[in-house]
Formats: sequence, C-alpha cells, structure tokens
Amino acid sequence: MSGAAPAAAKVVVALGGNALEDKSLPPTAQSQRQVVERTAQHLARLSAAGYELAVVHGNGPQVGRILLASETAASVTPPMPFDVCGAMSQGYIGYHIQQGLRRALKQLGRDIPVVTVVTQVVVDREDPAFQRPSKPIGPFYTREEAEHLAVEQGYAMREDAGRGWRRVVPSPRPLRIVEIGTLRTLWSTTITVACGGGGIPVVEEADGALSGVSAVIDKDLAAMELAVEMHADILMILTEVEAVALHFGTPEERALTHVTPGELDRYTQEGHFAPGSMLPKVQAAADFVRSAPGRRAVITSLDRCLDALEGKCGTWVTAP
Amino acid sequence: MSGAAPAAAKVVVALGGNALEDKSLPPTAQSQRQVVERTAQHLARLSAAGYELAVVHGNGPQVGRILLASETAASVTPPMPFDVCGAMSQGYIGYHIQQGLRRALKQLGRDIPVVTVVTQVVVDREDPAFQRPSKPIGPFYTREEAEHLAVEQGYAMREDAGRGWRRVVPSPRPLRIVEIGTLRTLWSTTITVACGGGGIPVVEEADGALSGVSAVIDKDLAAMELAVEMHADILMILTEVEAVALHFGTPEERALTHVTPGELDRYTQEGHFAPGSMLPKVQAAADFVRSAPGRRAVITSLDRCLDALEGKCGTWVTAP
Repeated sequence: MSGAAPAAAKVVVALGGNALEDKSLPPTAQSQRQVVERTAQHLARLSAAGYELAVVHGNGPQVGRILLASETAASVTPPMPFDVCGAMSQGYIGYHIQQGLRRALKQLGRDIPVVTVVTQVVVDREDPAFQRPSKPIGPFYTREEAEHLAVEQGYAMREDAGRGWRRVVPSPRPLRIVEIGTLRTLWSTTITVACGGGGIPVVEEADGALSGVSAVIDKDLAAMELAVEMHADILMILTEVEAVALHFGTPEERALTHVTPGELDRYTQEGHFAPGSMLPKVQAAADFVRSAPGRRAVITSLDRCLDALEGKCGTWVTAP
Repeated sequence: MSGAAPAAAKVVVALGGNALEDKSLPPTAQSQRQVVERTAQHLARLSAAGYELAVVHGNGPQVGRILLASETAASVTPPMPFDVCGAMSQGYIGYHIQQGLRRALKQLGRDIPVVTVVTQVVVDREDPAFQRPSKPIGPFYTREEAEHLAVEQGYAMREDAGRGWRRVVPSPRPLRIVEIGTLRTLWSTTITVACGGGGIPVVEEADGALSGVSAVIDKDLAAMELAVEMHADILMILTEVEAVALHFGTPEERALTHVTPGELDRYTQEGHFAPGSMLPKVQAAADFVRSAPGRRAVITSLDRCLDALEGKCGTWVTAP
C-alpha cells in the first residue's frame, strides 16, 4: 500500500518551523532567506523527480514578531489586527520561498513558476475552539500589562510556563479554502505557496462576505484541507524527525513505518503524541487518508523528503 | 478613437492612494478596510459591465507604517529589510481588496474569484535611478539620527520640506514582471491583485536567481508594464481628479479629454505635470498607448471609473 510514490503524483507539502528558521541564527529576515534557500533545495529535488507540488508553511515565530513590532510601536503608528499580521506574514514568507525555490530549481535546470497566493480559510464561528483560546501568540507581558490588555482589548491572556503572560487565540478547524479554484487552476503548471500560517482565518457573514478573525488555524490541518480540496495524491508533513515514534523520548521509543488511520487513533488515545506538536500532524495525516480511497500521507524530516517519497523512510499512513 | 470601450475589454486598473486611505480617518487597518469597501463597489461595477480586470495598488503610506513599526521596535525584534516590508504590504492590502471586492461582487450577484499574487518586478541594477535615490520612505528623523543611519546602515537620507530627515530610496523603471505567466493564466477567470506597491523590486543575478533591492517602483509605471505584458486593451489610472489638466490650479486650468502620447510629451516638456504626482501617470499612459496599436489609456477619478470607460469623462490617451 505504501512504498515509492508514482512520479507526477500531486503532493501537498507542509513545512515545519525548521524549514524557515534555524534557532542558532539571529531571527532576522536575512537568516530566514538563508534557511529557505536550503529548504528550497530539498523541494526542488522533489520537483525534479516529477512530483507536482503545493507548499504550505507555518508562521508562528514570524507572525509573533510582526505582532510584537506592531504592538511595540503602538504609540507612533496604529497596531495591526491579528488577521492582517497573518496576511503580512504570508507575503513575507511566500516571497522568500519564491526566491529560494526559483534559485534551487534553476540550479537543477528547471524553469517552473513559483507563486504565492494570499489565502483565506473559512472557519466556523460556532467552532468550540472560540470558547477556549489555546494558541499563544506575540510578546510576553507582565501580569499588570496582561490585565490591562484583557480589559482594554478584550484579549484572552494566559501565563506561559513561568515566562510571563501571553495573549492566546482560538485554533478552530479549517472548513474551506476560499481561493481553492485559483489554486486548482495553477496546480499543474506552477508551484503554489498557499495557506501560509494555516491561512488567514475568516468567517462567512450572512451576505456571503468574509471577515477576518483573531485565530490561528493549525498549519498541518490547513495543509490537510488543501490536499483534500486539491485532490492531491499525497499529503507530506515535514518536521524535525524522520518518523513518528511511539514512546517518544523513552527507552521504549519505536518508529512507525507503516500505519493506518485507525492505528493512529488508538495511539493517540494512548497519549503517544504531544498536543501542539506531533498530535496535529498525525490527525492531519489520518484525516487525509480517510478522505478518499487511495490517498496517502507521510510524515518525515525535511532532509529526507525525497527518500520518503521513494519509500525509503518516514511514517506512511495508508488505508488498511 | 476613444469613447465607450467594448465590453469584455481587458482593463488593468491602477488605484491611487485615495482608493485605500481616507485622510479624515485614523490610519488604521480598520479604516483601510472601510475605504476599500467603497473602492470595491466601483470596481465591482466595472466587472458587472463586462470588463475583465487586474488591479494594481500603491502602498506608500502602508509600507511607510510597516517600516516605522519595524524600526521603532528594533530593540525588541530585528527590523525588516525594505523589500520584505513591501512583500508584507502586498499581503495586507491584497487581503483587504479580496474581502472588499468579494462582498461588492456578491451584492451585484457576481461570483468571480479575487486573488492576490505576491509579485516581484525585475529592475536593472544599472538603472541610473540607483545613483540618485529620490523616493522618501518611512519615518522622519532628526539630523543626528539621520547622520547616524547614513553611517551605520548606508541609507541615503534627505531633508524633507523642513519636517525632518527621511530615508530616500531609488525609483527604478520596471523591466519585467516575474509572475506574469501566472497572471496571464488567471486573467480570464479571476480578478487578480498584482504588482502591489509597484511590485517588489528585484534584480537578476548571474545565475538567474532574484534578489530584492531597497527601492520603490512607481505603481503607475508598474501597472503600465503589467498592462503591456498582459496584452490588456486599456490601462486605467485612477486618482483624485476626473481628468488631467493643463495649467492645473491656475485660472487657465483646462481639462484634457482626448490626447495623444506626442501631445502629452509636449505638455510634459512645458512643465504641466507635477513629478511624483501627475507626471508618472501621463508617462505610464503614453508608454502603454505607444506599446502596440489599438491600446488606449484613461486617467480619471475612482468615482467616475465606469463613466470613463463608457466614454463620458476622463482623459483618454490614444494613438494619433
């Protein structure tokens, strides 16, 4: 059921944080560009091997810094709402991926356009996530500042591991990608960067108009939704580890090479996967495989992405 | 030669600053969204009348505020290079145009996708503009701060009308739109927002890779380049006035209704058009009309854009 993927398979690639940022470098745009150039070399090799790609990236650190700059400068220029910060991060990161991937593709003699489509993703205003904001964003505050922001701005604030207080926003599920028609049109000729940061979360008004909300859609779930709506063959989730493990970080650690959605459900119930880390990845993979017959998902490291598609490594999720 | 444009004509619309910002409102994202909703109603009427649209916008005030926030917060998070600020402004403004235009189109019963494509525009590293930076950007500084920035960052700094010192960047001519293939693919089915802020200016390296430069491409010239490369029928430049005038602001003021590129050249030499204001608009219009037979340009106000396409107003530029 798993093993080497056929060439010309359509692959939605979800990039992890390490594809954009190297924690040993200063958190500048210049560093990001360097890291993206390395990431792009891996992606270019997938393209050269015949895979048709769409690329989804996270934006946690980047949107955090955009928000931090915006709030720090609030006395000289009005701070930006969170949805706009998300849109800005899509421009920023997408632009770097366009440049990095163009260079890497040229080095392999390939001339495929790479474009970034600013992407909105519809969420449900009634999603229970809105009742329990869980995703920390932006700067740390003192308790007093946090209380002030809670009253003045209506922000939900939470203490974060003794390091101070942070704003938390809801993380609703993605329902629908607004720009999907365009993304489908471009798929066969173009590498599109889409749903950056999980997409800009919007709710649909009664008249069909869209409004941004202060929330963060998990980027792996957004990539899953994109893969479903693009009718992709494979959802590939790239992270820092080569495979998903049971008993991670213990002497009993065991890598999963082939697994079904049902098995992942069971392992999830047994508490093998960390929320906010491996858990959304395995959920996204399982959901994609369940969405239609023949769909497969793989979780592996950025460095091994081509090896994984060739069936040499990674955790493959397939129907039983 | 001029008069009503045929329906299904392809029109590249360049929006002026007043399409995004109302100086009587605070310069917030919320205000921008309100203003964009009004702008969108005008654009939606063009679409309903059968015109196929691509939309180019400026970003002067917005990128200035992004840069200001970034530099103000420099002690807490690294400031962003100017090309990245431009990419962020494309995400920000494009996102609002997507939302505003979707709502306005729905109100007219139209369901046309609106997408923003992050756009890079190639400029020539040898463009003489790089020898004489002319475009002020970002915050005002004291003389001392300006001298410090000139030494530390290598910025060109200039005193601005007694209000303080500002960084100035070059304004090179657009040569080529990197994402043009994608924009052509989308043209007939989609309203694309492209070349925001004149596009992110990039230079081509020896290996074909692209690098961003600190510069601002005039958005009317970028719209002209887009219209040429998209093989548009009409370049429409929207601004605050209904028509281009000779002797503007004097008792001899006279509106131009029909004019040829050659006539515009002569008026330009006579000094009728203000640099950085009407001059780039008439240059862009004249260049577009000269680029191929049958191409026409019109300069008018946002409010009258449909009337202008129906031949009722505006300054029409056509071949002699």
